[in-house]
Formats: sequence, C-alpha cells, structure tokens
Amino acid sequence: MPLSAQQTAEIAAARAAEARTLRPTVPALEAMLFHAMPVLDHGFLRVIDYMGDDAAVVQAARVSYGRGTRAANEDRGLIRYLIRHRHSTPFEMCEIKYHVKLPIFVARQWIRHRTANVNEYSARYSILDKEFYIPAPEHLAAQSTVNRQGRGDILTGDEAAEVLRLLRADAGQAYDHYAWMLNEDQADPARQGLARELARMNLTLNTYTQWYWKTDLHNLFHFLSLRADPHAQYEIRAYAEAMLETVKAWVPASYEAFCDYRLGAATLSAGMLAVVRRRLAGEKVGQPESGLSKREWRELMEILGLAE
Amino acid sequence: MPLSAQQTAEIAAARAAEARTLRPTVPALEAMLFHAMPVLDHGFLRVIDYMGDDAAVVQAARVSYGRGTRAANEDRGLIRYLIRHRHSTPFEMCEIKYHVKLPIFVARQWIRHRTANVNEYSARYSILDKEFYIPAPEHLAAQSTVNRQGRGDILTGDEAAEVLRLLRADAGQAYDHYAWMLNEDQADPARQGLARELARMNLTLNTYTQWYWKTDLHNLFHFLSLRADPHAQYEIRAYAEAMLETVKAWVPASYEAFCDYRLGAATLSAGMLAVVRRRLAGEKVGQPESGLSKREWRELMEILGLAE
Amino acid sequence: MPLSAQQTAEIAAARAAEARTLRPTVPALEAMLFHAMPVLDHGFLRVIDYMGDDAAVVQAARVSYGRGTRAANEDRGLIRYLIRHRHSTPFEMCEIKYHVKLPIFVARQWIRHRTANVNEYSARYSILDKEFYIPAPEHLAAQSTVNRQGRGDILTGDEAAEVLRLLRADAGQAYDHYAWMLNEDQADPARQGLARELARMNLTLNTYTQWYWKTDLHNLFHFLSLRADPHAQYEIRAYAEAMLETVKAWVPASYEAFCDYRLGAATLSAGMLAVVRRRLAGEKVGQPESGLSKREWRELMEILGLAE
Amino acid sequence: MPLSAQQTAEIAAARAAEARTLRPTVPALEAMLFHAMPVLDHGFLRVIDYMGDDAAVVQAARVSYGRGTRAANEDRGLIRYLIRHRHSTPFEMCEIKYHVKLPIFVARQWIRHRTANVNEYSARYSILDKEFYIPAPEHLAAQSTVNRQGRGDILTGDEAAEVLRLLRADAGQAYDHYAWMLNEDQADPARQGLARELARMNLTLNTYTQWYWKTDLHNLFHFLSLRADPHAQYEIRAYAEAMLETVKAWVPASYEAFCDYRLGAATLSAGMLAVVRRRLAGEKVGQPESGLSKREWRELMEILGLAE
Repeated sequence: MPLSAQQTAEIAAARAAEARTLRPTVPALEAMLFHAMPVLDHGFLRVIDYMGDDAAVVQAARVSYGRGTRAANEDRGLIRYLIRHRHSTPFEMCEIKYHVKLPIFVARQWIRHRTANVNEYSARYSILDKEFYIPAPEHLAAQSTVNRQGRGDILTGDEAAEVLRLLRADAGQAYDHYAWMLNEDQADPARQGLARELARMNLTLNTYTQWYWKTDLHNLFHFLSLRADPHAQYEIRAYAEAMLETVKAWVPASYEAFCDYRLGAATLSAGMLAVVRRRLAGEKVGQPESGLSKREWRELMEILGLAE
Repeated sequence: MPLSAQQTAEIAAARAAEARTLRPTVPALEAMLFHAMPVLDHGFLRVIDYMGDDAAVVQAARVSYGRGTRAANEDRGLIRYLIRHRHSTPFEMCEIKYHVKLPIFVARQWIRHRTANVNEYSARYSILDKEFYIPAPEHLAAQSTVNRQGRGDILTGDEAAEVLRLLRADAGQAYDHYAWMLNEDQADPARQGLARELARMNLTLNTYTQWYWKTDLHNLFHFLSLRADPHAQYEIRAYAEAMLETVKAWVPASYEAFCDYRLGAATLSAGMLAVVRRRLAGEKVGQPESGLSKREWRELMEILGLAE
Repeated sequence: MPLSAQQTAEIAAARAAEARTLRPTVPALEAMLFHAMPVLDHGFLRVIDYMGDDAAVVQAARVSYGRGTRAANEDRGLIRYLIRHRHSTPFEMCEIKYHVKLPIFVARQWIRHRTANVNEYSARYSILDKEFYIPAPEHLAAQSTVNRQGRGDILTGDEAAEVLRLLRADAGQAYDHYAWMLNEDQADPARQGLARELARMNLTLNTYTQWYWKTDLHNLFHFLSLRADPHAQYEIRAYAEAMLETVKAWVPASYEAFCDYRLGAATLSAGMLAVVRRRLAGEKVGQPESGLSKREWRELMEILGLAE
Repeated sequence: MPLSAQQTAEIAAARAAEARTLRPTVPALEAMLFHAMPVLDHGFLRVIDYMGDDAAVVQAARVSYGRGTRAANEDRGLIRYLIRHRHSTPFEMCEIKYHVKLPIFVARQWIRHRTANVNEYSARYSILDKEFYIPAPEHLAAQSTVNRQGRGDILTGDEAAEVLRLLRADAGQAYDHYAWMLNEDQADPARQGLARELARMNLTLNTYTQWYWKTDLHNLFHFLSLRADPHAQYEIRAYAEAMLETVKAWVPASYEAFCDYRLGAATLSAGMLAVVRRRLAGEKVGQPESGLSKREWRELMEILGLAE
C-alpha cells in the first residue's frame, strides 16, 4: 500500500475542495483526480491537474474564438485527420500533470523524454523512504536469447527464489546503512552524520523516488507510443498503461485516434511497400526476391500477420 | 474594435458555461477568462485556459501529496527563495494559454521564444482579414541616434503625416491586390484565382495575424523579463504589459517575487561589484581607475542611479 | 544572382583557409562548404559548419572510446536498425549549420520547427536589401479545388501576367517607401527618418531575409520528412531539396536509411493493416466493407498504388 | 586509472588520424581532443568533437558571409556586449560533444539540464563495469547544520572510516550479486540468468555509468553557471571545472566574458539596489530599516563583502 494515513487524508481533503470554473472541464477525469492508481508493488500514478479537452484541440486547430458549435462527429473527424497527418501542434494545447512514485531505474528511462517538466523529490534535501521494487514472480524473466535488449522465459525454482532473496537483502542492507550514515536526529550523539547528498549514493536503483511530471498531449502520445509498446521494459510499461487509462478518460476522441493511427499502426519502408504491392498483384515473392534483409523480412511478416 | 458581433457572442457563450472542478482555481483570473484585452489598434490578448496557481508552485517544490496546510507567508517565503535562487522547475508546473491577435512583425519577434506551444491562423488554408497596425502618433518615433537598435524622438508635422499615409496606403493596396489575386468565390468567373499559400506573400508585415500561444510560468517570466523591459520594442511590450496584468491576477505571490528579483533587479559584473565595494569603503573611484569600459561604467551609474 | 562581388570574395577567402584537425571530416561535404546553392530566384543555402559523420552516429550508439574498427557494412546495418526502430538519440550527435537566404513567408513556416538554433538578420538593427521572391511562371498555381491547403493548375495568360505584375509592383513600391521612411544617411536633411524597427512593417512578405540555422541530424530528418514531402509548399520544399543534397554528401548511410524508412515509407493504421491482411488472404474487400472512411480508403489505395 | 589498455589504444588511434578541413579550427582544443581528463576517482571527461569558435559567435550575430575581417578587439567587445545583455542566440551557434564517465547519482543531477543531446551506455543491453565512486577523505562531509541542502565539517576518525567501509562493502556486494544474477556466459550452466534490464536494479547509485553528451555554448554556460557554483554539489562541480578548462581553450573571449558577467557576477533585487544606493549616498541603513528579510540582508552583505 503506497500511501500513509496522512497522505490519504491529504488526498481526501484535496478532493473535497470543489470550485466553480469557466475552463473546459472533463467529468470523467475529475473523477480520477488526485486518486493514486497503484503501479508495481509500491508505486502509483496520480493526475494532479489538467488543461484542455478534445474540444480544445479543435479550437486551437481552428484558432477560434469560442468553444465551437460544430457537430461532435465533425470534431472527431478533424482530430483523426490531425493525428493521421501528424499535425502535432493542436495536441500541444492540452496539458496534464502527474504525481508519480517509481523506482529510480524506471525514472532514469523516463527522464530521457526531455520535453516535459519535472520536479523530483530531492534526496539532497530530504530522506527517502525504505521502499524498493521487487518484481512479482511472473515478471522475473531471464535474459532473452534472441534479443540483447529483451526478456526471455520466467525464472523459476531455486534461481528465482535466490534472485528475489538477493534483491531484497541488498536493497534492505544498503538502505539501513544509508540511514546509519545519515544518523538523523543525532540518533548516535557521538557521530555527526554524513551529508544527505553523499549518503544517497549508497542506495540501490530499485529504491522508490517520486516526482511531479507535466507534459502536453502531443509529447505524452510520443511517450506512450514508445513506452506502452510491447518492446518497452515491463516496469515502465506498467506506468504507461496507467497513463493510457487517464488519457482515455480525458480526451476520448484523441485517444481513439491515437490507438488507431499510432499504437495499432505500422510503418512500412519503401522496400516493404514494394513487396506488398507485388503480392497484391498476385506475384509470389519471398525474402530472396524481396530485396529486404532477413531481419526486415521477418518484421514485415509480423506486421502482415503471416507465418513465413 | 477588434471583435465582430459573432466573436463577441462566442466569447459570451463561453463565459456562460460554468462547471465544477476539483482543480486549483483562481477567481481573479476566472474573471478575466476569454475577455479580449485590447492591445495596439486592432490587436488583443485573451486568456483561454490556465493550470495551477501559487500553491501549485509550492506543491511541486515540495513534491507533496495534498495542497498543503502551511501558513500563507511560509509559501510566499518559499516562492521568493525559489525565484531568488533561480530554482526554475517549480514555476514550470503552472501553465497558461493565450489567444493573441498581433501584427506579423510582432509575431516574428515573439516566435523567437521557442519554449512554447503555438497554433497560428493559417494563411495557407484561410484568408486573413483586412486589418493592419498603424502606429498612434505618439509611437511614431525616429531612429535613435545613439542606439542602432532603438527609437529616438517622435516624428511630427509633415514627415509624420506622410509616414502614416504611406503605411496606410501600402498596406491597403497590398491587401486589395491579395484579395483580387485570390478571386475568392470566383468573384471574377473568368479567373481561377491564385493559391492562398502564394497570394499571402503580397501582404505587408503590419497585417494582423492571430494565434493560440501556451507556455509555462517559468518561460513566461523569461519572456516578460525580455519583452516587458524598456529596451524591448514598444509594439511587443504592449502585449507583455497586458500579460503582466494576467500574471498578477493569476499568481500574485510569484508575480511579486518576479517584480522584485527579476524585473526590478540588476546584474552586476565582477568588475562592477568591485567598484561598489571600493566606493562603500569610502574610496573615490571613477571610470579611469575602475577597470570598466566607458560603456560598462555608464551602465553601472545608471543601475546605481548616479549621474556621473 | 544572389551574391555581391564582396560576398563572393568573402566566401572564396573562407574556402582558402584550410587547417588540420583531428575531428571526423567528410571530404564530400568539405567540397560544398561555404558555397551558395541557389534556391528560388534570389535565395540560397550554404553549409557553414558541421559536426560528426555516419561513424559518429555509430560511436554514440555504442558509447565507444575510439572511432570503431568494425566493418563498414556492420555500421550501415546498425544505422538502418536505429532509423527503423526510431532510436533517435544517436542521430542527435551530428550537427549542421546553414546560412540561408529566404523569403519572409518561407521563414515563417520554417521557424515553426523549434528544435534548432537561429540567428536572423535583424531589420531592427540593419536595413534589408531590395529583393523579393517572384514565382517562376511554372510555379504560379491556382488554389486547389479539392484541397484547401494545396495548389491546383498553373495560371496562364492574362491572369498570370497580372498576378506577376502586381507582386512585383507592390513589393517594389512598399520597399521604396520603406527606404524613403528610413531616410538613411539623411538623404533628405529636413527629415529625421523613421526608426528601423517601425519602417520594416511596410515590407511585403516576399521580401528576402537571411539567417544562420543550426540543428542536429535527427531534427533535420524530421524537418525534411515534412518539408521535402510532396504536400509541402513548393517554396520551402525547394530549400528542403537543397538540404537533402547536403545530407547525402555528409552522412550517406544515414541518408539512405532515411530515404528507405522515412521519406519513402508509409504508415498504415490498424484499420488499413486489416484491409491489407484480408486482401492478401484472398478476400475481396472494398471501401464499404473495410470499416475505413472514404478519405482513409483513398489514402490507402494511394499508398498501395491501386486505382480503385 | 579509468581507461583500459585497449581504450587508451583506441584514443591514441583516433588522435593519430589527422585530416584537412575548411571549418573553423581551434588548435588549443585540438590538443585536448579525445584525451581523458580524470575526474573523481574513476571518472573522466573527454572532448569528442566541437563546432565553431569565438569568431563563429560573431559571424552568427552579424549573419555575415565570411569569417570577418574586423579587429580582434572589436570581436571581443561584441562578445562581451552579447553576454552582458543576454543575447544568447549567437552562443547557440557553437556546439561541443563530450564523453563522460560519471557516478549514476551525478548523472541524475546532470540530466535535469534538458537542452542537450545524450546517449548513455545502456545497462539494458550491456553490462556495467565494477567501478564505484568512493569519496576521498577530504570530501567526506557531514550534513550542514545551517543549510538543509549543503555540507558541513569533514568527517574524521572512526565515523569516517566506517562510512568508507560501508560504501565500499555495499557497492561491492551489490555488484557481485548483480554479476551472479546475470550469470553471463552461463557461468553456472544450471541457471538461466536474470535479464540485464532487471539485474541492474541491484546496483548502488555510486556505480559509474558513461555517456556522450552534446550541447551548445549558451546552454553549456547555463549549466556551468549552476554547476561550477560553490553551492553545487562537489561531485558534479568537479566535472563542471573540467569543462571550464575545455571552454577556456575553445572560446577564450567568450569564456572571459562569461567569467566576468556570469560566474563572478551577482544579481541585486530591487530592494537590495535601494540599500546600496542609500549607503552610497551616505545613509546609515541596517537590516531593520532596509525592508529586506534577514536572509536577504545576509545575502546582500555577502555579495558586498561586508561582515555585518
């Protein structure tokens, strides 16, 4: 359970303070606001604030004066057109802010997306909690034998047990020594205590940190297209999937278009397109005649759902 | 008057649609929402949406769970500390969206600030209105004789009259020919009409365009520190001053700190500081003994309010 | 001819100053350095400087110590893999700087790409030359009747002649009045002369400006994928095509991968992919049974090179 | 010693491959190219490539055709003017690329500077070396008692010894278990080995990573103004100081201006300026009459070098 009683009370207090506004408002997202969606074993994702909605995308694309009076299906059509043709700027007009609790090694992947605003909990200034990510047994995977960047079978038996034991023991011991070095509140009055900015270096990379993270809808879509992808590391994908739920509630028309034209889409190279055209024209073309490398051929067959 | 009856009605309709929200809300800014603040002769600035408030800056700086319960003056103190020490990321957690109508030559200065989101009215796709910026007589300035980048005395008499006549005549004629080339709705059925993306090149740079422009509070402060400065061109400063009013209503504590530590502040170089220290120690130090160039000395005297 | 004798001499002088360097160097691009490639009627594009080459992409992807000793075809394979799988950061390790002379309305499209560095010639500080873009007769197109954002047939006869006459006359007159208002060097000693920052507003949007523009290879590819596209406006596409030549000389392996996987590629939505799969399986599926809108169907047929 | 024999050989090979170029070249930086400057106990900083020099700043500011023929002191004056008046875009025209080996907790501070290009060694794909940062005794500081974000006295005696022992032991043990879990090359044929992307989470934050990092001179100056500052954490300041040496060799005039107007400068708020003016006018003004908070007063006295 990632929240303390005090944190739960603070969230409840925030949810109790309703106000009136003239701004675009999305009831389905309001219902989610501030609540912590659990992710991994101790992490969470909370929506803290948002700006805009589907209509705001349309309004910006049209540079219009009011909120528009067109039929909803006309707006939906425009949104689909904008996504399909990579007109990204109208989607930059919507903004969302999350509070996320996540393991440091996930934070390090995440921060590579630079077009966002971040305020991370400072271990230079404050003390981190004793919480680490330990994979659930079903996520404890071996190194892939075909992909240097992926996972293979799930570990089982003694090996799994020993890995879990080591992860727990090392993180716990490193944290305990971190706390000892800090000597907070002069627990041992004979010692000065190491500076926080130094002591933190003893923590393991599965220690949880947290941050406020804010981005616009276009950049969020880019993040999600990479991190909600099956090739993404499971631990960051878990956060991406929680974000997808919030986006679905927030901007349903944009979300639908994103699923159709980005998440579920595939890009075919010039060479791949040529193969598809020849096949549709009835020609029997295999990898040797295709001009594609074996790897690219395999990728094409996967896209086309063919087992060749 | 920059708005048509239809536009005014659309704005009134938008202001009539109130909703309930759990998000941070700022009544003083809600009162301004959607209204067009006139700027220059035909331009305006409207706040379309906003995210966050002073408390959101504090909340992000503390990465806290709720909206906080500290005393207001403690929050104010933190905000002043953050601005003074250039901790910029908490201010990135507030976002504001404007709809702006502005002359193209102002838009070209403005767009140099790249850390913002923009959707401009497309003259490739639509037709611009016949509206140009013509300076008011009190802004019709001569080239500065001391600063290659500034203005000098106000033009008067025949010269002023002729300049205004030429600005009006050329813009009007260029626009009329633009409309003729477009031949919209086959006004002349014998002509095809030039493509919009080409015809627009005939317009003058004082023609009004409009855009949606969205940025975060940190980048807005950077924009304002450059564009609300007395050295900025008057025409963009007029927009910056309208924005300052919206910021004051939106985040009063951050605004106050910004005025004290950025707008009203001055940066003293190592050499300037040395002069101030020597003077405070009672030494009589003039430009020749200062190690400063004449230009830098003049800048220092200006900062210190001394006429030497 | 876009260059004065003095400018040509300056370029020749720059090309005469050879030096020795340990940095990655690309002879094919060195041969182009500083030379002005003519674009449109008075514009040009010049490569001013560059950093990195194909091997630098590979070196960054591998975070390696030296320049690498692998076989060239291994490097080529890695580059193709990186582009295909949208690993963009290694391409950000190459940088190129251009000097471009271009009409203002093209500059306004161009500047929408924000991830670049720009220094534009300042009309606040200096005086622009009397040079305007006038389309060649074969580029003087009518508005498209099917695409609100495109061009249709070429204008001919009296209409074409009159359009060209108006473009020339209005730009020339606006410029002459600009010069009159400036009253540079007190041409008329009785007048003060209007401030440069004001006088420039009288210029038309086809007036030429110039800038230094610098970006990394990843962002350049993004720019080129949008602006070298047949749907881009011809006038900016002309610059994109000149840039493509420089990229081909600079990073031939990256260029080839970019052509195969981006320029010549097509993205198929989930719905489009379903149609292709059904067709390949022998099913007769037309638009009504496809689940695609008519517009999307048309786009699919175009991608597949089918006339249905 | 941070480099293996093979890495040293690769660097020597890279330094042996000289070429001719027409690009701006800086001999003093060429002399440093590729060499590893040691930082901390196992880290380093190497310049991999650069674009531009002091003259390139001037050339971009003037949007000129050649390399310029003005007197060197005129260029120096322009550079000083540009820095003093925060004209940042000409400095964006110079670019530098570093290869850095650094502890992960330093990398996490560093990456907060988003306007840069980064390729980090991937522990998802590869295996990290067994190298950790252990502070030298003179950097093993206690938590500051006055600044929650700073360091106090140096730890000594048993406390220091025990802290160092723990840092070494925990990092070593965590790494050994990391290697055990990886089971690389099937060291134990009975085990599958944990996926690299999971095993890495067991490492401590003082483990060394490495990356290629590239930025422009303006953003580098911003980085250095924050990270070469005495308030920055020592471990990142050590890298900033190595970078300052490279900048001094690369762009000496820009470096000098940066030292005078940024590194050695101080910003005085409106209230601070008022105090200085009153004091210079002979008034005896102390904190109570100053209108400044005690904290701000203390900061002002520090700036003025006064002990009040």
